[in-house]
Formats: sequence, C-alpha cells, structure tokens
Amino acid sequence: MDLHILAHRLRVTSISKSGLQNYTHPLIKLIFLRNRTRCKFFSLTETPENYTVVLDEEGFKELHPSEHLQVECSTWLPLNVVSNGNASSSSQAVGVTKIAKSVIAPLAEQHVSVFMLSTYQTDFILVREKDLSVVIHTLAEEFSIFREEDGESVPVHSQDACNGLERNGKEAHHSTVHPVMIPQNQFCVMSLDPDTLPGIATTLIDVLFYSNSCKDDAPAADDLECIKFFSFSLIDGYVSLVMDTEAQRQFPADLLFTSSSGELWRMVRIGGQPLGFDECGIVAQISQPLADSDISAYYISTFSFDHALVPEEDIVSVTDMLQDQRKDAGC
Amino acid sequence: MDLHILAHRLRVTSISKSGLQNYTHPLIKLIFLRNRTRCKFFSLTETPENYTVVLDEEGFKELHPSEHLQVECSTWLPLNVVSNGNASSSSQAVGVTKIAKSVIAPLAEQHVSVFMLSTYQTDFILVREKDLSVVIHTLAEEFSIFREEDGESVPVHSQDACNGLERNGKEAHHSTVHPVMIPQNQFCVMSLDPDTLPGIATTLIDVLFYSNSCKDDAPAADDLECIKFFSFSLIDGYVSLVMDTEAQRQFPADLLFTSSSGELWRMVRIGGQPLGFDECGIVAQISQPLADSDISAYYISTFSFDHALVPEEDIVSVTDMLQDQRKDAGC
Repeated sequence: MDLHILAHRLRVTSISKSGLQNYTHPLIKLIFLRNRTRCKFFSLTETPENYTVVLDEEGFKELHPSEHLQVECSTWLPLNVVSNGNASSSSQAVGVTKIAKSVIAPLAEQHVSVFMLSTYQTDFILVREKDLSVVIHTLAEEFSIFREEDGESVPVHSQDACNGLERNGKEAHHSTVHPVMIPQNQFCVMSLDPDTLPGIATTLIDVLFYSNSCKDDAPAADDLECIKFFSFSLIDGYVSLVMDTEAQRQFPADLLFTSSSGELWRMVRIGGQPLGFDECGIVAQISQPLADSDISAYYISTFSFDHALVPEEDIVSVTDMLQDQRKDAGC
Repeated sequence: MDLHILAHRLRVTSISKSGLQNYTHPLIKLIFLRNRTRCKFFSLTETPENYTVVLDEEGFKELHPSEHLQVECSTWLPLNVVSNGNASSSSQAVGVTKIAKSVIAPLAEQHVSVFMLSTYQTDFILVREKDLSVVIHTLAEEFSIFREEDGESVPVHSQDACNGLERNGKEAHHSTVHPVMIPQNQFCVMSLDPDTLPGIATTLIDVLFYSNSCKDDAPAADDLECIKFFSFSLIDGYVSLVMDTEAQRQFPADLLFTSSSGELWRMVRIGGQPLGFDECGIVAQISQPLADSDISAYYISTFSFDHALVPEEDIVSVTDMLQDQRKDAGC
C-alpha cells in the first residue's frame, strides 16, 4: 500500500459554543464561497463542548484571534493511505479499521500522537510536522511513502527522513484505557456533489449556526441520551457530512447521498475527561479490537474527545469488546 | 384611496461597512431563517457609506449594540396607500409618483419627516410615531385611513387623532434644494417566490457580505461613475430586491422576476452631505416634478442619502428637470 503525505499544512482549533456567532462570517466564507478563499482543507465538527475547526494555513488566516478561539500550537500534516491494487489485506472493513494494524498501532508504539479525521471519501491521519521523520521511519517498512508537492507525488525514502531523525524518546508504557460513552443517536455519513452545496446552504447554515438557540424550546427529555454531533468537511473539493438521523431529516433528501441507502452508524465516544493532544494510543485503543473483529469504523477526533462510528448492527459486540478491554486493564 | 397605518413598529439603523461582519449572524437569520425569528419587516440596503437596516422591534432585538451600529432614536410607522378601485387618478405612473401630490407634498407642508421605502410590491411611507396625529389630520381629507390591528383594518377618524393633536409648529419655508448625483449603473427592481429564497442564498450572501473584499481586486476605473447600491427586503413574507445589472448577472436567471422583462432604472441620488432625519420635503423635492411629468419612480431612503429610481428612458428629462429646479432655487 502507498502512504501519501499531503501538501496541506493544518491547524487544529476550537471555537467556543458562545463564540460561534463571532465566526459566522469567516466560516460561511470557508464553507460556501470557494472562489473567495484559497483554503483547500476545511473541517468543522460540532460536539456538546465546542466546535472543532481543522483547516489549512490559508483558511486559518480567516479566523481572527479572540477569547473564543483556541488554537493547538502545532502544524499538522495529513497522511492518507491509498490501496494500490495489490493490497494483501483480506479485510472487508472500511475506514480506520483498515489502517489500524499498519498505521495506527505502529505510530502508537512510537508515541506519535495522531488526530484522525474520517470523511465519506477517505480517512486522514493527521500527525504533527515535528513527528514526520519518526512517522516516515516507522511506516517505511509497510508502505511506499510519497510526499505531495505542487500536485506531484514524490517518493520519500526512509534514509532521507533519518537525516536529523530524533526518535520520540519516551519509554513505551501501557496506555490509559479511557472510558467510553455510547449515545443513542444513529448517524449517517454522507456526501453531495459540491456544485449542489448551494442547494443545502440555508439548511446547513441553520443546523450549524442556529440550532443551539432552538434547543431551548425542545423538550429536554428527548435529548437525554443523545449527543449533539455534526461534522462538515470540504477537502480538496470533496464534501463530507456526518450527522444524526434527526439532523438528516432537515435536509432535502435528493441532494445528499450515502454509500448504501439507510446505512446507519452508532457512536463510541472516547474520553471521560478532555483528552488533550499529547497522549498517544487513543485511536489504537479502539481501532485494534475493531480490526481483530474486522468491524468497519469511521473515526473523528475533536479538540476534546475522540469519536468512532461503527455499524449499527455491530454496536452490541463492540460494547462487549470495550467492556472486556476495561476489565483486562483493571478499570 | 385608502391609507393604511400598518402594525409594524420600526427602527431605522445603520451598520458601518467595517462592522458588517459582526452582524453576519443576526442578519442571515433575519434574511433566510424565517422560522427562527418573529421579525416581519426587514430591509437591508447597502450604499457606499454603510448598510441601512430598517426592521421591526422583534428584528431589532437581534442586533446587539456596538460601536458599528447607529440607531435613529424614533419609532417609525409604515403607511401604505391602497387604491380601492375607484381611484380618480389618470396617472399611469407607479411608485412614489402616484402619491407625490396626495401624501408626500401635504406631509412636507406640515413639516413631517418621511423615510421612504419602495419595494417591488408597494411603497412604504415611514413616519415617526410621534407625528402620527399630524399625519392623520393632514391626510384625512384625501384618504380613508385605517389602522392595522391584530390583522384587522380599523377605521381611524381624524377627530380621534385631533385629541391631543399638536401640529408641528414650524413655519413653512422654502426647503433647501439638495444637489443630486446620477450614477451610471442601470438598476432592476425584482422579486422572487419566498420559497425559492434558499435557491439564491449563497449568491445573496456573497453579494451582501463578501463583495467588499472583492472590490479591492477590481480595476478601480470600472467603478468610477458607478455606485454601490443593493437593497433587499423581506416584508410580510414578500421579497424585494433592487440591484444593478452587474449584481444581477451573478444570480440564477430563472428565480428572480421583474414586472416586465428588461425594465431598467437609473438612479438619482439626493444629497451632497448626509441628509439626517429631521429635514422635511426631500422626497417632495424630487417626487413633485416627477408627478408633474407623470414619470414613475421608486424611492429608497437610507441612513445618509435618498435615492430615486426613474425609468432609463426618462433619465435625460429628469436630469434637465432637476437642473431647472436648482436654477430656479438660485443654486
């Protein structure tokens, strides 16, 4: 398989719930007005805590500093695994499961933090720019590695990476097993033709920027075991949306599509306390057992927590699996 | 003819050019998300100076105070003239011309300030709430006057209005004749089915909230004799748009309609210096000669200046007429 280091240089930021309206202007530009910005990588995910915005440096320029904006200080680079036809994997699973053993586990062993961003189209593995040589060295055995430069894929040799390589010196230790939460909502992972994005503009704006004010009116009991989670990304011209079925009903049915009709996903939310960015092995904690059982999963990291989406029919076995894992870890 | 005093209680405000992005959130709500607001009267007009926003008290609540928001201190009430079938007028003209002699001139004589807002559907004459009894007294001879209350039209008798009537005591005097400017743009006055408003959302958002940043790129020479003027209103569910042909080209042609295809208008902009709200007779200055010549006109007041739109084919005679007026006044 091939591993591509994409040319985007990304920042990971968070906007507070109460501060979102101060960022309506730049966010609407980044979402809908492609001709007005050079941003090519944009992702916005609403969780109950905040809005996580991951975007390239061109997009980041649009976000004015304020007390409502938190910025992780690193530059992150997105990696992307591409099956080159002669993949030996017999797995039918998709998403993060497919790369659990080949990418996620080895990086966790090397104490490299990863920030995952699954989309309808693919799975981006974000790593810190400063960790890149460790990443290349670690993954070079398993992958042909290419670096995207000016639209071309340039092969990267592990030796090159070793020049000046400082391996993460931390001693390997048993990772914390984080508590998980399994909300009741059913999610769908969708896309649409970017040319039809204007057709869902008012609905998307309503859901993203005005749905909190509405929540006050809704009977609280309805939401007791559901979680607010909505993710939009526009990356290299491809749109991806992750939303629950309640949000989905607000959109015109004819514009959004999913890979197979009615495919629904349940969420496993990782972390009892905000996870931070420095701990390693969080994605591995959940993707390893999923890979062992060949269960597909999308995986979306946010500023505070991680979120895996697994097929609805597998949620019981995944729940059991995670309980066993906690028992083994002595939690 | 009937004169209706509508139930809306309006505020006239202005948002500075540089402050608009701070108001993107409430303005998008007021324009596109009718279900999220109780505002029934909303009008936004961009001029080179600022954005004039006229809206009812429900809408006004959405605009947080800031250094970028100027608010005229009065409450304004919109009046609306309705032909009740047996109108004696032989005029073919539409818009403010039709009410020049019956409404505009008598109010100017009584020193009542008016703020005009023509739309695709009708012409609103805004008067200050404190002037209402003078207005009723002044117009009762010519009109049957009704006050809209809870969706019903209640007849208003001039005697009622005279209780506590204080006529504006100022001595009638010859009004200042303000300089006018006649920009080169051609304008159209358009509407669309409010249910198709989402279909123009991204274009409208682009034009309203992001077109200034684009202007820097445009060759300045192109704009030398053109004026930035764009007006959107959503009043009682009816949408009206006034824009120049350059802006019009950005919109999908199939959604917007105008009363007769290709009807184009030229602008007469009134005032060399910002006009303020207290001077009377400004609308009369231009609508009287138009009425004498039976030339149709839309009329849009903004925070700083007044704007009349006359049919393209009449612009030469209107220009001559206004020059004669200035000569007569000894300017």
